[in-house]
Amino acid sequence: MRITVIAPVILQGPRPPSVLAFAAAARPGCQVEVVFLDRGPASIESEFEEALAVPDTIVKALAAEAGGSDAVILDCMLDPGLEAVREKVAIPVIGPGQTSMHLAAMLGDRFSIVTVLKSLVPLLRRRARDYGLSARLASVRAIDVPVLDLERNRDASVHPLLEQAILAIEHDEADVIVFGCTGMAGLAEAVHNGLVHRGYPDAPVIDPGLAALKHAEAVVDLRLTHSKRTYPLPPRKALVGYPGM
Amino acid sequence: MRITVIAPVILQGPRPPSVLAFAAAARPGCQVEVVFLDRGPASIESEFEEALAVPDTIVKALAAEAGGSDAVILDCMLDPGLEAVREKVAIPVIGPGQTSMHLAAMLGDRFSIVTVLKSLVPLLRRRARDYGLSARLASVRAIDVPVLDLERNRDASVHPLLEQAILAIEHDEADVIVFGCTGMAGLAEAVHNGLVHRGYPDAPVIDPGLAALKHAEAVVDLRLTHSKRTYPLPPRKALVGYPGM
Amino acid sequence: MRITVIAPVILQGPRPPSVLAFAAAARPGCQVEVVFLDRGPASIESEFEEALAVPDTIVKALAAEAGGSDAVILDCMLDPGLEAVREKVAIPVIGPGQTSMHLAAMLGDRFSIVTVLKSLVPLLRRRARDYGLSARLASVRAIDVPVLDLERNRDASVHPLLEQAILAIEHDEADVIVFGCTGMAGLAEAVHNGLVHRGYPDAPVIDPGLAALKHAEAVVDLRLTHSKRTYPLPPRKALVGYPGM
Amino acid sequence: MRITVIAPVILQGPRPPSVLAFAAAARPGCQVEVVFLDRGPASIESEFEEALAVPDTIVKALAAEAGGSDAVILDCMLDPGLEAVREKVAIPVIGPGQTSMHLAAMLGDRFSIVTVLKSLVPLLRRRARDYGLSARLASVRAIDVPVLDLERNRDASVHPLLEQAILAIEHDEADVIVFGCTGMAGLAEAVHNGLVHRGYPDAPVIDPGLAALKHAEAVVDLRLTHSKRTYPLPPRKALVGYPGM
Amino acid sequence: MRITVIAPVILQGPRPPSVLAFAAAARPGCQVEVVFLDRGPASIESEFEEALAVPDTIVKALAAEAGGSDAVILDCMLDPGLEAVREKVAIPVIGPGQTSMHLAAMLGDRFSIVTVLKSLVPLLRRRARDYGLSARLASVRAIDVPVLDLERNRDASVHPLLEQAILAIEHDEADVIVFGCTGMAGLAEAVHNGLVHRGYPDAPVIDPGLAALKHAEAVVDLRLTHSKRTYPLPPRKALVGYPGM
Amino acid sequence: MRITVIAPVILQGPRPPSVLAFAAAARPGCQVEVVFLDRGPASIESEFEEALAVPDTIVKALAAEAGGSDAVILDCMLDPGLEAVREKVAIPVIGPGQTSMHLAAMLGDRFSIVTVLKSLVPLLRRRARDYGLSARLASVRAIDVPVLDLERNRDASVHPLLEQAILAIEHDEADVIVFGCTGMAGLAEAVHNGLVHRGYPDAPVIDPGLAALKHAEAVVDLRLTHSKRTYPLPPRKALVGYPGM
Repeated sequence: MRITVIAPVILQGPRPPSVLAFAAAARPGCQVEVVFLDRGPASIESEFEEALAVPDTIVKALAAEAGGSDAVILDCMLDPGLEAVREKVAIPVIGPGQTSMHLAAMLGDRFSIVTVLKSLVPLLRRRARDYGLSARLASVRAIDVPVLDLERNRDASVHPLLEQAILAIEHDEADVIVFGCTGMAGLAEAVHNGLVHRGYPDAPVIDPGLAALKHAEAVVDLRLTHSKRTYPLPPRKALVGYPGM
Repeated sequence: MRITVIAPVILQGPRPPSVLAFAAAARPGCQVEVVFLDRGPASIESEFEEALAVPDTIVKALAAEAGGSDAVILDCMLDPGLEAVREKVAIPVIGPGQTSMHLAAMLGDRFSIVTVLKSLVPLLRRRARDYGLSARLASVRAIDVPVLDLERNRDASVHPLLEQAILAIEHDEADVIVFGCTGMAGLAEAVHNGLVHRGYPDAPVIDPGLAALKHAEAVVDLRLTHSKRTYPLPPRKALVGYPGM
Repeated sequence: MRITVIAPVILQGPRPPSVLAFAAAARPGCQVEVVFLDRGPASIESEFEEALAVPDTIVKALAAEAGGSDAVILDCMLDPGLEAVREKVAIPVIGPGQTSMHLAAMLGDRFSIVTVLKSLVPLLRRRARDYGLSARLASVRAIDVPVLDLERNRDASVHPLLEQAILAIEHDEADVIVFGCTGMAGLAEAVHNGLVHRGYPDAPVIDPGLAALKHAEAVVDLRLTHSKRTYPLPPRKALVGYPGM
Repeated sequence: MRITVIAPVILQGPRPPSVLAFAAAARPGCQVEVVFLDRGPASIESEFEEALAVPDTIVKALAAEAGGSDAVILDCMLDPGLEAVREKVAIPVIGPGQTSMHLAAMLGDRFSIVTVLKSLVPLLRRRARDYGLSARLASVRAIDVPVLDLERNRDASVHPLLEQAILAIEHDEADVIVFGCTGMAGLAEAVHNGLVHRGYPDAPVIDPGLAALKHAEAVVDLRLTHSKRTYPLPPRKALVGYPGM
Repeated sequence: MRITVIAPVILQGPRPPSVLAFAAAARPGCQVEVVFLDRGPASIESEFEEALAVPDTIVKALAAEAGGSDAVILDCMLDPGLEAVREKVAIPVIGPGQTSMHLAAMLGDRFSIVTVLKSLVPLLRRRARDYGLSARLASVRAIDVPVLDLERNRDASVHPLLEQAILAIEHDEADVIVFGCTGMAGLAEAVHNGLVHRGYPDAPVIDPGLAALKHAEAVVDLRLTHSKRTYPLPPRKALVGYPGM
Repeated sequence: MRITVIAPVILQGPRPPSVLAFAAAARPGCQVEVVFLDRGPASIESEFEEALAVPDTIVKALAAEAGGSDAVILDCMLDPGLEAVREKVAIPVIGPGQTSMHLAAMLGDRFSIVTVLKSLVPLLRRRARDYGLSARLASVRAIDVPVLDLERNRDASVHPLLEQAILAIEHDEADVIVFGCTGMAGLAEAVHNGLVHRGYPDAPVIDPGLAALKHAEAVVDLRLTHSKRTYPLPPRKALVGYPGM
């Protein structure tokens, strides 16, 4: 099984640690390849940046399908281009936002999302609503650390993540914690341990990127993919400025 | 008052008649300018095409704001890039889909959307859900005519629009009809007359493009714009492939 | 264009300043006439008073239609008699409550209503629910000033309105503020300026009466009216105590 | 126990048979008094007529409370003035529409309302929505017989009621049938027998007026009444045209 | 009329005072019989205990029906086995949880449930959701007293119930209070008096067991029962370990 | 990895073919063990039978956890005892109903469930509602074949499954098909092939049992389990008739 993770950002410098977590987490026999964009933003913290990430994400997904990948993961909590990519390819296209919110709704009654910036709160609240899960969303909280800073100094984020998770449990009646940024990949264990230590052993902590990877493995095993009735192949027509699509 | 209509498509040949309807409908003292994309699809009938329309739509919206426009209309029922554009500009950004569905919900209990292609049904159903109005959506129906054919031969579309509108009223219990494509601009009167002639004088027929224009005039008059708490300005950061943004 | 504003209250003394705002806000060529009730309450702060306002509101709306008005505005946030009046007349009947809540839902994700009395909180919450918008309602707050006191000393209300608006933003996560009484007409600018001054420039403040006026202008321009399928003309039958209806 | 049934209509000729059903159905020791309006419509088949019924309904409810009644029933499926009356009196005010829909939701998954006129369909659909039960409403159907004709020739209505009930079960997947007019009081047994005879013994048939009576007995026994937090007593103020309120 | 109250627990020692409240509250001519389980838990404070209570509850309900009872009440706020029992018997099966939440939704806008243990909060929130009433649920609060302790020392529970009720009103904007355990039967008057004394006379306090009793009387009077379309009789088939079912 | 599948029925004769599908579908290194009940029904087609299956299902789950299993699957579309079992064990407890409905909601917009008996329709509709997914449920349809007959002659079920799936797509606008009984395990490929052959290649067909297996593998890999805040461990107390629990 081969799964392509599309990091929907341009790479500046070394690969961020969060993308390394995928290969480590893949099950035996599952090969994970991470690709970055040639055109797009350095990180995604707005609808604007998401919009600029989508065109090249589609290119990369088409290449992944052509190259024989069994599934594509859009490595961002906002699921950039989920619908558009699903229209263009037949292999499963997995969004960490959609996957982790549905997983949270299956593991408990109410979930809170803890994300990087306050400005992402309305975007994630909107995603929960679009996925039909807002009745289960206890809150969206932020640690006020930009994605790129988070990637540079991951250990420093554990404490604010833990603080916000505890507030979500105590104040917002959350039963499950969902990380609100795939850049937090690999930190779930540390935050969960912190919760245990602070007297909250009972709330699962979901890493959306890894949840997407495991969901992708499951969907491939089941030989399923998204419904092409919901996501029909676009008709061919004139297109300017996007060669090769 | 100056309003910029962004037709989120590339122009191939003469301007389609639907965009002419705007200038005719603007109130005295309101100047409407229609701009087309330099990069993008010839028409929008999928999430994929919408995604490719958004980047240059943002460029055009930024130019409109810089040029002194009072508001921007995204001239497509799918409201391409509504959230992204609102993040980048401070002037009102009006989507015909959002505007016409809310207008329909104010004029009656249940509305049906009559669009061009069956493949657009899930997209429009999703928009109604995202806007929080799906409890009021009676149905989405299609006339099975692509946008570009519609624009070439508009009169031929009146009859199938009428037939679907009658089915929506009779079969789906619709109280209000909403056109599901801004390319249908200018046909509402003919369809409404057809409904009167066929014994259905009681269902309003909403032209989403003109509804957006009138809503834009209203919002500008009220000196309002979208909440920048919901649509905060994106942080500045590295961006490859999108010069000038 | 002629629009009749029905102030659904009896007039005691001079016309309140809030109704003067309409004529000033009407666009060139739009003539606004304000009429008061002959029978009804001095102000509306309960369902009981609303109920007593409706019969004469219907009389006034019938007179407006007979006199050639193009639209009627029911000048109260509770939209007194919206459905009943729509059944009896064919011209558009616009409710500030319905209009402003839908406008708020289009401008941002979550809105709060700031009204006069705490006793109005359940009534406005119910209106939001009836209009299908309660998922977007962050809160209803009150300044604890009766309508008639508000009209007598409008400047004194700016500060409590500002305080409640800030609480709505900070505590209830509101993105948009909606005045919960049409008696507040003309105060939006002062409250918005106060918000800017206090560090909250990003939340629009909606004046429901003026929003209704602009919406009325738009609906008249679009040659639309409410669906008579939703609001069918009542059958004629015996009626005691309401001559002329 | 004394319960006052307010028939929110003027009486023309003899008392309709539907109101006789109340006294017969009251439990031993419960005395039912039926009062008619002095001012209002001959029957209620629109929001307009409902609006004209409310003022004198309030008068009658105040008189009932002053006269020592333990509860008031508003004898119409539209629950005319339910909120306004509850604000003015402290004794329980019971609406057949609200009561019968909640009862239906407790007895089965999906209910259909079978009413008199097609023009009542949007009104009853709206009531179900306002009561928060529209997810359980399978359909609203009509027999196309006006209330006053129904009262004049009740036996003739059993067959069309039965036909619509069967369509509701077969076509709309209804589990429970609710009469959509209190003028149908006393016909539930005949319709239920018809359903048994036609092979549908499993769907309860709810008579909303009698359901309201039994609910009133229950609420009085429980020494409960509506929450005055939801329905606060209106402040006293000038009121023209409604002496004695 | 004969009503069987099934206390879905085993009896250890004398009958708890809460079950005595039923006979006292039954109307003249209504005979109430309380039966306890032979197999099951000592009290129900979890889904696990509920599950173990259901099999013998079914046995007791079948015996009640065979013995001529007119209705069965499942005397626990969690409505243990409501659907299963309804499938097996034709007489009305009444759940205090379902009944009291619907009653609360009829008496006011928002209700809060005050229960025994914090661990019951998610269970009761889930019940409200399953009954379609979560939009009206203000909160679920707990007094942190186990059921069996409550039964042993009922007076000691009045104060914590009162404290939580006041918090529900003040902090959660509740209009109606619902006891979240049928073991609290008989305490509503004391808590209501406490609320009056503390300045909150306006919020009704619902005793779910007694509400179920009165609802049972009403349903029997109306000759109604649950829809066997929603709760069809199970087919006969092999069954091991449950003799006599 | 070891996963215990609890078939919540007693075994009469040879193991049904549906349970053989699990071992075949498990990924390398995942060992699946299927256990049957000692006490319970022969098949589950009602809430009553579900209720009788739960007590021994809990026993089997406790044994699985004690024996070192990594997860438990409740092999029935009704998810018998999902909440109760989750309270008693700490390892993941996976329900095919919950899993397959969430999976369907992730793969497309609207899903239909095709089950065995019409009498299961309200039960499955209720499950969809309880899981918060009813807005996405297009319909529940039945092939009118009891579970035990289905297991005896599986090939005969492919055609009626196909017919109902096509009706779901054509008539109910379903985008995804979900089998409504885990006894259908292994038939998804044949039904999907039939859909392709009949011109409906675009709708995925979900086998709920296998979906649960793959989800269990994913959850175990992620080292997650259900939230013990939502499903707290029941307190210890007296329990009659259920030794060993």
